[in-house]
Amino acid sequence: MNQRPGNQLFDAYFTALDMRDVFCDQGRVQAMLDFEAALARAEARVGLIPQTAVASIEAACRAEHYDFAALGEAIATAGNSAIPLVKALGKQIAKDDAEAERYMHLGATSQDVMDTGLVLQLRRALELIEADLMQLGETLATQAWRYVATPLAGRTWLQHATPVTLGMKIAGWLGAVTRSRQRLLELKPRLLVLQFGGASGTLAALGEQAMPIAEALAAELQLTLPDQPWHTQRDRLVEFGAVLGLIAGSLGKLGRDISLLMQTEAGEVFEPSAPGKGGSSTMPHKRNPVGAAVLISAATRVPGLLSTLFSAMPQEHERSLGLWHAEWETLPEICCLVSGSLQQALLVADGLEVDADRMKRNLDLTQGLVLAEAVSIVLAQRVGRDTAHHLLEQCCKRAVAEQRHLRAVLGDEPQVTAELSDAELDRLLDPAHYLGQAHTWVERAVAEHFALTA
Amino acid sequence: MNQRPGNQLFDAYFTALDMRDVFCDQGRVQAMLDFEAALARAEARVGLIPQTAVASIEAACRAEHYDFAALGEAIATAGNSAIPLVKALGKQIAKDDAEAERYMHLGATSQDVMDTGLVLQLRRALELIEADLMQLGETLATQAWRYVATPLAGRTWLQHATPVTLGMKIAGWLGAVTRSRQRLLELKPRLLVLQFGGASGTLAALGEQAMPIAEALAAELQLTLPDQPWHTQRDRLVEFGAVLGLIAGSLGKLGRDISLLMQTEAGEVFEPSAPGKGGSSTMPHKRNPVGAAVLISAATRVPGLLSTLFSAMPQEHERSLGLWHAEWETLPEICCLVSGSLQQALLVADGLEVDADRMKRNLDLTQGLVLAEAVSIVLAQRVGRDTAHHLLEQCCKRAVAEQRHLRAVLGDEPQVTAELSDAELDRLLDPAHYLGQAHTWVERAVAEHFALTA
Amino acid sequence: MNQRPGNQLFDAYFTALDMRDVFCDQGRVQAMLDFEAALARAEARVGLIPQTAVASIEAACRAEHYDFAALGEAIATAGNSAIPLVKALGKQIAKDDAEAERYMHLGATSQDVMDTGLVLQLRRALELIEADLMQLGETLATQAWRYVATPLAGRTWLQHATPVTLGMKIAGWLGAVTRSRQRLLELKPRLLVLQFGGASGTLAALGEQAMPIAEALAAELQLTLPDQPWHTQRDRLVEFGAVLGLIAGSLGKLGRDISLLMQTEAGEVFEPSAPGKGGSSTMPHKRNPVGAAVLISAATRVPGLLSTLFSAMPQEHERSLGLWHAEWETLPEICCLVSGSLQQALLVADGLEVDADRMKRNLDLTQGLVLAEAVSIVLAQRVGRDTAHHLLEQCCKRAVAEQRHLRAVLGDEPQVTAELSDAELDRLLDPAHYLGQAHTWVERAVAEHFALTA
Amino acid sequence: MNQRPGNQLFDAYFTALDMRDVFCDQGRVQAMLDFEAALARAEARVGLIPQTAVASIEAACRAEHYDFAALGEAIATAGNSAIPLVKALGKQIAKDDAEAERYMHLGATSQDVMDTGLVLQLRRALELIEADLMQLGETLATQAWRYVATPLAGRTWLQHATPVTLGMKIAGWLGAVTRSRQRLLELKPRLLVLQFGGASGTLAALGEQAMPIAEALAAELQLTLPDQPWHTQRDRLVEFGAVLGLIAGSLGKLGRDISLLMQTEAGEVFEPSAPGKGGSSTMPHKRNPVGAAVLISAATRVPGLLSTLFSAMPQEHERSLGLWHAEWETLPEICCLVSGSLQQALLVADGLEVDADRMKRNLDLTQGLVLAEAVSIVLAQRVGRDTAHHLLEQCCKRAVAEQRHLRAVLGDEPQVTAELSDAELDRLLDPAHYLGQAHTWVERAVAEHFALTA
Repeated sequence: MNQRPGNQLFDAYFTALDMRDVFCDQGRVQAMLDFEAALARAEARVGLIPQTAVASIEAACRAEHYDFAALGEAIATAGNSAIPLVKALGKQIAKDDAEAERYMHLGATSQDVMDTGLVLQLRRALELIEADLMQLGETLATQAWRYVATPLAGRTWLQHATPVTLGMKIAGWLGAVTRSRQRLLELKPRLLVLQFGGASGTLAALGEQAMPIAEALAAELQLTLPDQPWHTQRDRLVEFGAVLGLIAGSLGKLGRDISLLMQTEAGEVFEPSAPGKGGSSTMPHKRNPVGAAVLISAATRVPGLLSTLFSAMPQEHERSLGLWHAEWETLPEICCLVSGSLQQALLVADGLEVDADRMKRNLDLTQGLVLAEAVSIVLAQRVGRDTAHHLLEQCCKRAVAEQRHLRAVLGDEPQVTAELSDAELDRLLDPAHYLGQAHTWVERAVAEHFALTA
Repeated sequence: MNQRPGNQLFDAYFTALDMRDVFCDQGRVQAMLDFEAALARAEARVGLIPQTAVASIEAACRAEHYDFAALGEAIATAGNSAIPLVKALGKQIAKDDAEAERYMHLGATSQDVMDTGLVLQLRRALELIEADLMQLGETLATQAWRYVATPLAGRTWLQHATPVTLGMKIAGWLGAVTRSRQRLLELKPRLLVLQFGGASGTLAALGEQAMPIAEALAAELQLTLPDQPWHTQRDRLVEFGAVLGLIAGSLGKLGRDISLLMQTEAGEVFEPSAPGKGGSSTMPHKRNPVGAAVLISAATRVPGLLSTLFSAMPQEHERSLGLWHAEWETLPEICCLVSGSLQQALLVADGLEVDADRMKRNLDLTQGLVLAEAVSIVLAQRVGRDTAHHLLEQCCKRAVAEQRHLRAVLGDEPQVTAELSDAELDRLLDPAHYLGQAHTWVERAVAEHFALTA
Repeated sequence: MNQRPGNQLFDAYFTALDMRDVFCDQGRVQAMLDFEAALARAEARVGLIPQTAVASIEAACRAEHYDFAALGEAIATAGNSAIPLVKALGKQIAKDDAEAERYMHLGATSQDVMDTGLVLQLRRALELIEADLMQLGETLATQAWRYVATPLAGRTWLQHATPVTLGMKIAGWLGAVTRSRQRLLELKPRLLVLQFGGASGTLAALGEQAMPIAEALAAELQLTLPDQPWHTQRDRLVEFGAVLGLIAGSLGKLGRDISLLMQTEAGEVFEPSAPGKGGSSTMPHKRNPVGAAVLISAATRVPGLLSTLFSAMPQEHERSLGLWHAEWETLPEICCLVSGSLQQALLVADGLEVDADRMKRNLDLTQGLVLAEAVSIVLAQRVGRDTAHHLLEQCCKRAVAEQRHLRAVLGDEPQVTAELSDAELDRLLDPAHYLGQAHTWVERAVAEHFALTA
Repeated sequence: MNQRPGNQLFDAYFTALDMRDVFCDQGRVQAMLDFEAALARAEARVGLIPQTAVASIEAACRAEHYDFAALGEAIATAGNSAIPLVKALGKQIAKDDAEAERYMHLGATSQDVMDTGLVLQLRRALELIEADLMQLGETLATQAWRYVATPLAGRTWLQHATPVTLGMKIAGWLGAVTRSRQRLLELKPRLLVLQFGGASGTLAALGEQAMPIAEALAAELQLTLPDQPWHTQRDRLVEFGAVLGLIAGSLGKLGRDISLLMQTEAGEVFEPSAPGKGGSSTMPHKRNPVGAAVLISAATRVPGLLSTLFSAMPQEHERSLGLWHAEWETLPEICCLVSGSLQQALLVADGLEVDADRMKRNLDLTQGLVLAEAVSIVLAQRVGRDTAHHLLEQCCKRAVAEQRHLRAVLGDEPQVTAELSDAELDRLLDPAHYLGQAHTWVERAVAEHFALTA
């Protein structure tokens, strides 16, 4: 049995280490063994197997006893990971306690082991993701307040529009995080369920003891006993994948915004710098958005993986071939990519560098045109809507044609200066005075964050 | 302006008519106009515009006033559907009331109109889907009870395994329906929200009246006012798409099961027949699963559409170009496909034809081997597990080698007959006596259905 | 029979009109009827049916005879579009010539009609796409030459790097177009094939005349007779979809580049303006990339649709249910989206507006740092590589720290001025003199374009 | 630096070992080093660097010198794999030859290293896939001939239709393999190209020597020098992925067919058995399609991965962030999955077990109805088409109603027996005599296979 060659060069960049610990060979095997140990305890509790067998079974249920490369080879013959593991477990138990071997895995089928093992892994994954999301929410809430009054150009279709604030932008990122935290709370009861059905899902081999054992097993593993086995009803898993996909997408939006703001031409916001991070010795001005790249990458990869999960839902009868197999590496990969995305988002959000001066300068790139609306509204109250609108349109056109600042053009226009003083005009042309509800949005997003956290 | 040529040959087959009504040109335009009318009412309520303008605006807010083909052409220039519609609305209002025209659409941006319009359509779509899911749940609950004791072969990897019941199989389909009903309930508060932010999302143009107007507008439309505008935070929409994807997948599983059971070689379950439905004059035995085809087709198409929605999440800054556009036809298409899938599922579930005799005969295709486990368990209680297991293994091998029924082989085996009487053997070899918790699963699934319905 | 409500509001924006003509109800129906007419001619040619029947059958094979809404309803019962169309065709023939009706559709199966009809549509689609690609290639070749010496900032990771030329950028777009033209040429023989197999693909009903008829039919339709029917071997279709996906992706890259260059902060390149196009009356500076939005949108939608086509490949046995159905609207939609993308690309490429002055100014945003490499290389030849590199690094750091232009810092550095004259330094800091092979890349891309075109 | 935990439990099942060797950390690193070594040789050849440096650089260009875990950590900071590898390479060279270190990597950029390295890996992958496809074609050609006259039920919509032969079915699988071999030949010149452009793609740093070096480098690596660098034109790679997707889809169809034929109710064709392969000790009749599961799984996973590649095409400007990253693990994963699918297809195709008797028995499941068409055609020649058709329809209905064999019903029908003797009827009801062009299809598919192979 040869060890398969490693394939992990990009792991540290794309995956959080603690998530990789969940979804590594060791993690997979241990989770399946946790099922077997709990099954033995449950079956002893209801009297199906002797209490004396439990300790021997439990002792064998430690991943370090097993040769993963050999298991891998055996999987290729058996068609799933539970059959060879159960065989190896039997041998391991028998080493110490031949009698106990007969009492392991009673009434369970391969997919019970694999699916419940997966759920145990997903529970750990969920905890990691919830903790990271919570932390990210905290950080974004803090940052949103910090920049609650920092104006920058609003950009629609990548064109400057009326000003917004950085705080409001961050509050937008925060809102998405909060909503996905809520979603995880909601799906948790559907996801964290036992899989236990035996050969065809009826638990027939366990006779009258089936339900007591199922209940005891669920209790052992602190999982919910679902209405029925779900060997070919995969909506629980796919739903989880989908919410992870929402997280990846929302973080991708954060990454896209930051990468655009970091452009040499914009230069308003930067990922935190670190020695060697995204830098270039030959181009000292260059600061590559190394974290944003991960956020965008994950948001590009997860949708395809998700479409696989959705495509794999129409599983045949009581146990599928091929569609079930398509899930095995796909859902873990989604978890890993989202963990990596969160890891980078935390770094970026926490260390965000902001150039508020550049924001101000950029706001003036259109020479005041983005604030024409502000002037128009006030003027309308004095000279009537139509006159005001017409007047502003003329002034804007003149500003563009003459390449002058709108403030200057307005200052030269008697119909305007008759109504608005220099100070008024200055104020109206100041982005900081045309921010509408930007502050309110921050308040509300932060309030939603804390409402969920409390 | 030419009418674009129609492209709807497959609409009746793949889409429910009432869903098409929601997502047709008329539906899109009316929903946007509903936003404009409500905006006028809201702005009149807080005093921004005169109450007198409202009736004129409302009168113009009826889709039948507008030429959809001309709008379509104008969209190609404007880059979205709201700009030309608002222009046309202005002209329509001005026909009767030139004054009122000035009071329409105040403070709103194109995406406010389009997104809120979409949410109004999605609310109707959601109602249709919830009603269909509820009805499907009812039907499946009824059918699960009807066939609670109808045994058929369990099939894993498309191979016969221990028996199950048709009721349990149906209960599996039901469980997925119930869970997705629950999901829709949970996401509804996130989905049914107002979009209202003005040019860059700050509502700056409305000054101090912004929040009162936003609240009044939300109230007018019976939508929730979200924490903030979500022009480039699309998780609400994608989440809805994802749950529709779960429904499509779960119905695809139902369709796949039925199409497999309808195979000429299985012949256990059939879609209801109707004149001309799936039949063939040259092959009178043939009965094509015309409904299952739709279920499988939708489950194959929706995942790709969904991956587009997820891919389109990283939308730039305050308004995206291209990614937003990618949603316009995609989410409606998902709604339509799921509606068609539900429509067929309702027909199929309601009219399911069952050949219980054929199920019995098919259960015997392996000549009793699928019940070896049942015998083994009882025998173990008498002669010990190892002996029993060894004995059964021998008998099974003999049955296969000699192509005899396991019952006959067992009846010839003195070690077996010493322990088990003819009557006992007959009973053990009867699938109806080896159904485990199949009945319980039906009970539980039906209970969950009613718990949600009540 | 009710007409289904229209759903085409976005058609003009996202789809070229001539492609919609190919893939509309009329186009689908006519293509199937073209198959039936050709079949009659072919069967008459080999003597299976009387020559006299042909004219009557041909006369009925005109789409305008048929009620598409009624066909749509019948499809929902029949499960495909050929069964009801063939029935209606029979009635239409029988109106004039009851005898002829018996000779139509002999030996063919529904999927023969639908698939060959589709291939006939795809041939038209292919012609349109090839013509547009050819035209786009011409335009890009012209534009690449026009801007062969127009420098702008190279941008990697959205950060300024050493300069490139606009011509080279356009040549990159051109190269992708040329490669996809080549791909279409290569796949054409695989795609443009007859589908003709009868009930199970054996043509058994036609006895000894089967091959002569198949050959005659292929000749009538100017399609290739493939090695065998391909009812459930869909690689030919999916391959075409995939090349369309490559085109969508390449045009998406073009659209992304343009939308980034059009940013208010960049302002280097613009889509052509047209009255009302992408403009905003309240923000006269704003010019939305209305065409780029379509390019990006198509590049976001096609991948999902493609994944559906790929997912639908494992079609069962001799004719699939569900997976085949999943193709019916998906491949046409890909064709339509790509046609719309091409339509916009042609407009954008042809009318590209370029602000070469802004490019120059933007090139200086890093105050010469992007050209440090150029100075370093020349200096290395005089003072040695290490010294030169070290010197430049110091000067760059100083330029950043002091916020001065690199030219000024270098001019103050005696070690530099000892080796490089003012004129030399000016030249080295001029982006136009550090363009490497940019000209060559244009030459080569244009040459490849013409090599394929000739 | 910690080694990341392994994640390869399913590698042996889903991936061919030789493909894993191509796409493992060692394979990635070595391919990048091969680029660096070749670059040194090329630059020495044209005189840019001293010939004496080459050997030292080459000596350092061996993957075993490098610590992959440390590289992985550094990638997370640098944002790509080339920057840390080049740094490590420099240190490695400097150990022996400090002078030589200055001559490595001249003029190249990170993406040159990574992309050319990838192309070198893809060349190996392509060779493996071509060899496997060729072998699979051979095997399928042999099997198609072996079963050229073995009838089984044609199945459309999973319902029995007129008979086909197993040879014809296999020929269908073969045809798809041949077409994809052709596609690989066609794309090869587009795929196997050098990536070499330097910082922004202009090769400016190499001055006048740029093109000679590029040509020499291409020659060293036996790659084509493309028209221009393709750092953000990714169609070459995606095209390759797409053809791999076609292969996965075609093999998925093969797997689906086999899994359906292996159903307990069909039992016509089996994957080869091997000790422990897909078996079950408790259910000796069970033989899980362990290989088909891989074929279906790959066909379910690759489409999602492909949609990621297509989605990642619109890469910004001269070098993308995020979209490029999304490719790094995705294309290799597609190669690996397809290799695993081919590996299983080879096993299955070669060892196919066929139960021709069961096929015959299954053909009779409809009691002759699938052959009604055959009788009708012959009868039509004697009594006219309409009479014959009407007669058969009646007999078929009677057969269904009375649950009798069509042969018996026909034998009882005087209008039939007046025209057709018992022997004739027997012959007409024999599937072996109604196989149409099944033999021809095999001939043609095999001929196409050999035409490409010769």
